[in-house]
Amino acid sequence: MNKEELHQMLHPMKLIGLGGNKALNEKIANILHMPLLETTVHHFSDGEIAVNIAETVRGCDVFVIQSIQDPVNENFMELEIVCDALHRASAHRINCVVPYLAYSRSDTKSRSREPITAKLVANLLQLTGIDRLITLDLHASQIQGFYNIPVDHLHALPLLAQYFLDNGIATSDDDDVVIVSPDHSGTKLARNFATNFNAPIAIVDQRGAHYDDSVHDMIGDVKGKKCIIVDDLIDTGSRIASSTHSVLAAGATKVYVAASHALLSHDAVDVLNKLPIEQIVVTDTIKHEKYPDRIVRVSVDQLLARGIDYVYNDRSIHQIFDEQNRIK
Amino acid sequence: MNKEELHQMLHPMKLIGLGGNKALNEKIANILHMPLLETTVHHFSDGEIAVNIAETVRGCDVFVIQSIQDPVNENFMELEIVCDALHRASAHRINCVVPYLAYSRSDTKSRSREPITAKLVANLLQLTGIDRLITLDLHASQIQGFYNIPVDHLHALPLLAQYFLDNGIATSDDDDVVIVSPDHSGTKLARNFATNFNAPIAIVDQRGAHYDDSVHDMIGDVKGKKCIIVDDLIDTGSRIASSTHSVLAAGATKVYVAASHALLSHDAVDVLNKLPIEQIVVTDTIKHEKYPDRIVRVSVDQLLARGIDYVYNDRSIHQIFDEQNRIK
Amino acid sequence: MNKEELHQMLHPMKLIGLGGNKALNEKIANILHMPLLETTVHHFSDGEIAVNIAETVRGCDVFVIQSIQDPVNENFMELEIVCDALHRASAHRINCVVPYLAYSRSDTKSRSREPITAKLVANLLQLTGIDRLITLDLHASQIQGFYNIPVDHLHALPLLAQYFLDNGIATSDDDDVVIVSPDHSGTKLARNFATNFNAPIAIVDQRGAHYDDSVHDMIGDVKGKKCIIVDDLIDTGSRIASSTHSVLAAGATKVYVAASHALLSHDAVDVLNKLPIEQIVVTDTIKHEKYPDRIVRVSVDQLLARGIDYVYNDRSIHQIFDEQNRIK
Amino acid sequence: MNKEELHQMLHPMKLIGLGGNKALNEKIANILHMPLLETTVHHFSDGEIAVNIAETVRGCDVFVIQSIQDPVNENFMELEIVCDALHRASAHRINCVVPYLAYSRSDTKSRSREPITAKLVANLLQLTGIDRLITLDLHASQIQGFYNIPVDHLHALPLLAQYFLDNGIATSDDDDVVIVSPDHSGTKLARNFATNFNAPIAIVDQRGAHYDDSVHDMIGDVKGKKCIIVDDLIDTGSRIASSTHSVLAAGATKVYVAASHALLSHDAVDVLNKLPIEQIVVTDTIKHEKYPDRIVRVSVDQLLARGIDYVYNDRSIHQIFDEQNRIK
Amino acid sequence: MNKEELHQMLHPMKLIGLGGNKALNEKIANILHMPLLETTVHHFSDGEIAVNIAETVRGCDVFVIQSIQDPVNENFMELEIVCDALHRASAHRINCVVPYLAYSRSDTKSRSREPITAKLVANLLQLTGIDRLITLDLHASQIQGFYNIPVDHLHALPLLAQYFLDNGIATSDDDDVVIVSPDHSGTKLARNFATNFNAPIAIVDQRGAHYDDSVHDMIGDVKGKKCIIVDDLIDTGSRIASSTHSVLAAGATKVYVAASHALLSHDAVDVLNKLPIEQIVVTDTIKHEKYPDRIVRVSVDQLLARGIDYVYNDRSIHQIFDEQNRIK
Amino acid sequence: MNKEELHQMLHPMKLIGLGGNKALNEKIANILHMPLLETTVHHFSDGEIAVNIAETVRGCDVFVIQSIQDPVNENFMELEIVCDALHRASAHRINCVVPYLAYSRSDTKSRSREPITAKLVANLLQLTGIDRLITLDLHASQIQGFYNIPVDHLHALPLLAQYFLDNGIATSDDDDVVIVSPDHSGTKLARNFATNFNAPIAIVDQRGAHYDDSVHDMIGDVKGKKCIIVDDLIDTGSRIASSTHSVLAAGATKVYVAASHALLSHDAVDVLNKLPIEQIVVTDTIKHEKYPDRIVRVSVDQLLARGIDYVYNDRSIHQIFDEQNRIK
Repeated sequence: MNKEELHQMLHPMKLIGLGGNKALNEKIANILHMPLLETTVHHFSDGEIAVNIAETVRGCDVFVIQSIQDPVNENFMELEIVCDALHRASAHRINCVVPYLAYSRSDTKSRSREPITAKLVANLLQLTGIDRLITLDLHASQIQGFYNIPVDHLHALPLLAQYFLDNGIATSDDDDVVIVSPDHSGTKLARNFATNFNAPIAIVDQRGAHYDDSVHDMIGDVKGKKCIIVDDLIDTGSRIASSTHSVLAAGATKVYVAASHALLSHDAVDVLNKLPIEQIVVTDTIKHEKYPDRIVRVSVDQLLARGIDYVYNDRSIHQIFDEQNRIK
Repeated sequence: MNKEELHQMLHPMKLIGLGGNKALNEKIANILHMPLLETTVHHFSDGEIAVNIAETVRGCDVFVIQSIQDPVNENFMELEIVCDALHRASAHRINCVVPYLAYSRSDTKSRSREPITAKLVANLLQLTGIDRLITLDLHASQIQGFYNIPVDHLHALPLLAQYFLDNGIATSDDDDVVIVSPDHSGTKLARNFATNFNAPIAIVDQRGAHYDDSVHDMIGDVKGKKCIIVDDLIDTGSRIASSTHSVLAAGATKVYVAASHALLSHDAVDVLNKLPIEQIVVTDTIKHEKYPDRIVRVSVDQLLARGIDYVYNDRSIHQIFDEQNRIK
Repeated sequence: MNKEELHQMLHPMKLIGLGGNKALNEKIANILHMPLLETTVHHFSDGEIAVNIAETVRGCDVFVIQSIQDPVNENFMELEIVCDALHRASAHRINCVVPYLAYSRSDTKSRSREPITAKLVANLLQLTGIDRLITLDLHASQIQGFYNIPVDHLHALPLLAQYFLDNGIATSDDDDVVIVSPDHSGTKLARNFATNFNAPIAIVDQRGAHYDDSVHDMIGDVKGKKCIIVDDLIDTGSRIASSTHSVLAAGATKVYVAASHALLSHDAVDVLNKLPIEQIVVTDTIKHEKYPDRIVRVSVDQLLARGIDYVYNDRSIHQIFDEQNRIK
Repeated sequence: MNKEELHQMLHPMKLIGLGGNKALNEKIANILHMPLLETTVHHFSDGEIAVNIAETVRGCDVFVIQSIQDPVNENFMELEIVCDALHRASAHRINCVVPYLAYSRSDTKSRSREPITAKLVANLLQLTGIDRLITLDLHASQIQGFYNIPVDHLHALPLLAQYFLDNGIATSDDDDVVIVSPDHSGTKLARNFATNFNAPIAIVDQRGAHYDDSVHDMIGDVKGKKCIIVDDLIDTGSRIASSTHSVLAAGATKVYVAASHALLSHDAVDVLNKLPIEQIVVTDTIKHEKYPDRIVRVSVDQLLARGIDYVYNDRSIHQIFDEQNRIK
Repeated sequence: MNKEELHQMLHPMKLIGLGGNKALNEKIANILHMPLLETTVHHFSDGEIAVNIAETVRGCDVFVIQSIQDPVNENFMELEIVCDALHRASAHRINCVVPYLAYSRSDTKSRSREPITAKLVANLLQLTGIDRLITLDLHASQIQGFYNIPVDHLHALPLLAQYFLDNGIATSDDDDVVIVSPDHSGTKLARNFATNFNAPIAIVDQRGAHYDDSVHDMIGDVKGKKCIIVDDLIDTGSRIASSTHSVLAAGATKVYVAASHALLSHDAVDVLNKLPIEQIVVTDTIKHEKYPDRIVRVSVDQLLARGIDYVYNDRSIHQIFDEQNRIK
Repeated sequence: MNKEELHQMLHPMKLIGLGGNKALNEKIANILHMPLLETTVHHFSDGEIAVNIAETVRGCDVFVIQSIQDPVNENFMELEIVCDALHRASAHRINCVVPYLAYSRSDTKSRSREPITAKLVANLLQLTGIDRLITLDLHASQIQGFYNIPVDHLHALPLLAQYFLDNGIATSDDDDVVIVSPDHSGTKLARNFATNFNAPIAIVDQRGAHYDDSVHDMIGDVKGKKCIIVDDLIDTGSRIASSTHSVLAAGATKVYVAASHALLSHDAVDVLNKLPIEQIVVTDTIKHEKYPDRIVRVSVDQLLARGIDYVYNDRSIHQIFDEQNRIK
């Protein structure tokens, strides 16, 4: 018997997929050749949630996949309640796999009497006795430090970069492309993304409110260039809108957008549809009924499946990053 | 300066009313002659909640009133996030006043792999550093033991009993009335309620599922009697329906209902409207747009206001129970 | 190697039996074909307890069996001290097997300034770093929620029911039998027990103090019937006494008693001996020098041994319940 | 209003005296001119303890006095349960005053698989949410470090020294006296005690078991001297017995004994009565029905009362030590 | 008596100044008209630290001022040990005032198997039972979320901006000035700083290692402008050096530097002295023997003193920010 | 596969040696035939420490060896930071192997407002989630009780005793030797050490300050005897100096010294060189550049290596003590 067989015998892997993004759950399960454990999550008419796990989990290493997308609080409580049930049912380890972790933007106290909800979420998750969090492209990497349990922080942006390379939109050494950060905080993200194309960056000098028709100054030069606006998430689309207007006003020739998490809340689909953007490339961490035109979705299924597999088998997650770099 | 003035100077009382049941919040504030502290709770289009407390709470004793009614998880997270903000804003003490505490029925593990969500809720609330819980007519009194912080458990049922006495429906020594428990677990509650009328009790011998048209055997005699069915809450109304049919089939002459928490979920209003019930007497712990016909609502505003006042001023809550008994 | 062999090699099972009920400890050990680990528990003349575990427990999965019977506090502290020793001696897992868990009746705060001792006991047990509690017929199932560690709650009442069936006292569909709850809180327990005989139930309408010569009204009909009074425990016997008098006064023909835990404190043996009861059927969770006449003891040894075996081998405890149902 | 009046108004002091040593409780209360709060502690016939605190403690600073003497585990659980009740009853602060803290000798793991029960006791006490421990002459001063809460460690030995000075048995610069430690661990205690008389010390070179008739070598010279054997506690008396025999065999002229805690377990009274000791001077931290002849009890009532008063009024305990030194 | 007098009577304020930056401690104490409490911190020859607090702190609100500057670990352990002593000495509240909080740059796990030392520091500080952290210009504002206790995060950068305004180097609406971020992460900080002058910003496009002689591309235009490079801290000076070279290479006319924390480690003084910088404006959070030429130090004494005063008297820290804005 | 192979496959052992005493780390690794895992610990010029673990530790049982010698706080923080990194890197178990644990003398609060730093250190170590401490000859064995995790406390003194036996300095039944404790607290240690030679003991009656030229009275007889002064550690050497002078003044013929931990701080080397001591026998728990003349170092490498091996393989540490006794 080798280590993997031993582990599988002593602490079998079980996958649970909750209701946030069932399509993604299934893709991951397929890649891992593992069934999703039959789990009924009932939302009662009075607003309460009840769960029923059909199969024993005693001594098992359970991976619970839940994207904390809208309705955020329902999905979050689903995850909490399932983890409580798993803990009381004597699971050996509980690993939360959260493709999109809501509330990550509430990561600091920017005004008096504000909560730090990302920290509250971290405390609440840890309270239920989970052993690990596997997540993707956090709004700020410091959020790892909100946890005392190990956090495996995977990166989807290399997948998006790969799309641009594969589809001939940009090359790995491209003078014609500028990577654009839609605000000041995103500069480092833009710089990291730009290394895939050995490209320069520019920043939308967004001051004050960001309405979708406002045009801001640019820091850095985009004149005559193809611009890829990169962000960790698209919420209502207003930041993408003002960024698009700003780069075009500064002389950009074409606009692309890359973002990990496509929240697309409120009328984001309409807002984005009206914008002169060539393509919007996002991942499938969040599921929607309707998408903007010209959107391309790159799946994180392989990435998360590999994350689960490596964690279960005590292989270094670092290898995933290395493989990502090799692909490039 | 007396003790109350000293306390008010050192640790002023502040009231916060969250969105679960704003009407009740305001009634309580009026009785206490205290404004509700201006607090904005914003539910964003992506499903996240943000809060903004307009006024300093440093060194204050804050009472946060929130009924965890439908949408249960939204209201619960509202409370959690506000408590996190208060804690970080250096409130001296955070007291949660929860007229209706959802998930209380999930107080035990009745099957394998079930959560104990009432305990999870207790853990989550305590995690945010709250100092006390004031609540009302818990589904099981054992839930107090889920908490390590002090819990002040108030009782609204005496108020409902008073209504029946005040309106001549029953007397304090009434041979004509039988108090009915709609299921086996409620027997003790029925017995307590019956002491207000020195009345006998009967139990609906409900076995298996409870559909609104099923008729069950009765344990105890209701023939020729006026029945008051008493329960801690009315959810979909199906249990009240089958109880009503059962007591009538067993020869009861009239049916009344008393319940603390009127959840009235799903089509409860319609279900109740169709039943041959004289009156349904509930409290206002939960707010609705629409109520069943023949409903009477007795407010818990005085009770909760007195609870807050006594707690703030270190007076024994026991006195409230004594006063309730005196009224009788 | 299969899973069980692997587990046995990596984390051997060890059994420790403490002084509460040594006879039961030995029965369980015999069934499991495991020796009880040599453990000296010394009660010094100054009242302190010292323990000495003769054999290494490093890396072992230890099951400590202790019935918290009278002297309750001595037995409880024995368990605590042994768990501390096991924890410091690097046991892999510490599982407490507690056939009778004292203080379970103190599960709520029924008056001001009362403790919730069942919760205190839960906190104290968890503090010493135990991993699991296996127990039997708790006074209230909510007590599971006092724990954050997994609790395996086994049921001995089916064994008692089986006795009545096996000995022809009742049949599985018996019109001649009524199951009687000695007070209001026990209604649900009585209902569950009654399902074994498809029998109706009745409740002793016990109000105020319960002296052994008081006769209470009955809720439900027992006239001309064989009554089985069912309770979770028999303490001083006074509740059984008044229940017996009450059912006989209401016309019952014969009285039987079924109870999980036979505390038999104070002069219970004398009290019960004087009562016109046909048979008293209890389990052996508690050991005594002297028993009432006409008592029958059904052992929980097989049940607990199976519980230990299933837990150790990661098999679902649910199967035990299924097997119990099959036997019936 | 001065600080003490303010404090008394905001957080009144309440005293609770538990059953370990009621005589001492009352002495302390008398000195403080405070009534002992009416508290019923009921030991039920089944071995459980129930408590009933007659008066509100909301917002009060409560001092609970309990000597953890034999029956040790009963008295310890009494204290635990009362603290749980006080905590749930919203006491402002809970201060445990423990004249004798049992299990202090179990302060290290001297063999494999031993517990460290003094640490377990510390953890259990802190778990119930107490704010402070006031205690007296711990077996090892390191036990303070077992606690994370503040510990006020008072010393009764100066009171015993004072007795020897006041009664002309020894002077403050006495060549005729040797202070004797009954074993190696007590050397430092003996040295401290000897400073009161500017006297030399000697040590009973006790190796192996200590039976009351064994004679050990002496380290240091006692020939022709008056010996005061000093120890933190007298348990069965066997160590005093062998020490007495040893110093006499080495030529001592007279033997006295000084010890803080007079456990006097097993047949200690008989053992001590048979020994040729002039006087045995102990404190009243532990209460007995019967005492050895020639015993003198020095009360710690003033010391503990002052400790409580100083703690309540935020005065430095250090002043007590200074006052003790001044007396000398 | 008003609230402040009451508070002062019940819980007097005490200031402790540790060895990190004694000059600053004294300035703060002078402004508050409070003596620094006599505290001996002894560093023994074997490397251990011992502390001795000369005066009682029972019931006091203590503010411990310690800048965690080099030697970082010594200064950090000093703070830890003093907080342990204060906690055991029954201080009412322990507030840590940390002008410079070391390890803040270690706020995320940027590679596999890295620690998050800023979180470790947060956990270690909270462990000793401190009640609050007051600090200044954290490397990332998310670090507030590493704490569960309230953090008062003050800002010194407005003081530096004020210096530039007061000394005519820049005006509040200045076309001639560009604020420069020395790397991508600092963009938001630069933008905030720039609002004081209504000035544009530029970013040094620093990729890879930062040696002091490397010249990087600029994002944004600095040609013919006066540049103020702004950073949260100056460590070895190499980042300032390469930034200075880069802006000059891009055509800047003059270079100024503003930074909160002047670590000036290694040969920073020499490095900075060689650079063609007009002025370097820093705060006095860190004390040095030797400073670079042309350095200006703006004291944070008033800011921290006001922070302490406001916290002690339950006034909103928000007012400090408002006052800072008014000054501008 | 046997248990050891299974364990090695599932949770491979990894050794990390930190900077306190690298020579000892390597000796231990050699004995275990295990490489030390490549770990870079960088002390930056600003005083911060960064660590880099070169190899995956997922699922591994890691043993981190660090002697907390001078610079104590640096070495302690190194250990803390590495443990944080290991925890976040998903190590299965983290075992700290600490040959010398600094701050152990600060194990009690001997004056008001003192910290108990040994307990603080215990809390800080446990906070980082370590699973076990393996250490050697603690200053007081009670320090084990400062920890809630298992502590394996090994003893090096038998190794030193063996040296004296092996080199003919003392025999196993030696009338010519007296074991001397340099102060009162060390009496028990001296007694234990003396059992190796069946020798009597004596105590230096050290009162007040201990300067190296002071001569104290002796308790017990050393006239004409060979004296071995035994202590747990040698710090500045002043206690050894005054002890040496005292025993010689009392007529001792020759002086030897045995001590576990050779701190040798300040001018200890010079102090010891000037003393008329035959030999000083210490262990190599602490590394120095320079040693006193006539010093003999006995390595603890075998002892610690065996400790690590036994712990990893779940063998009882007790066997090590047995083996030590057998050797004798």
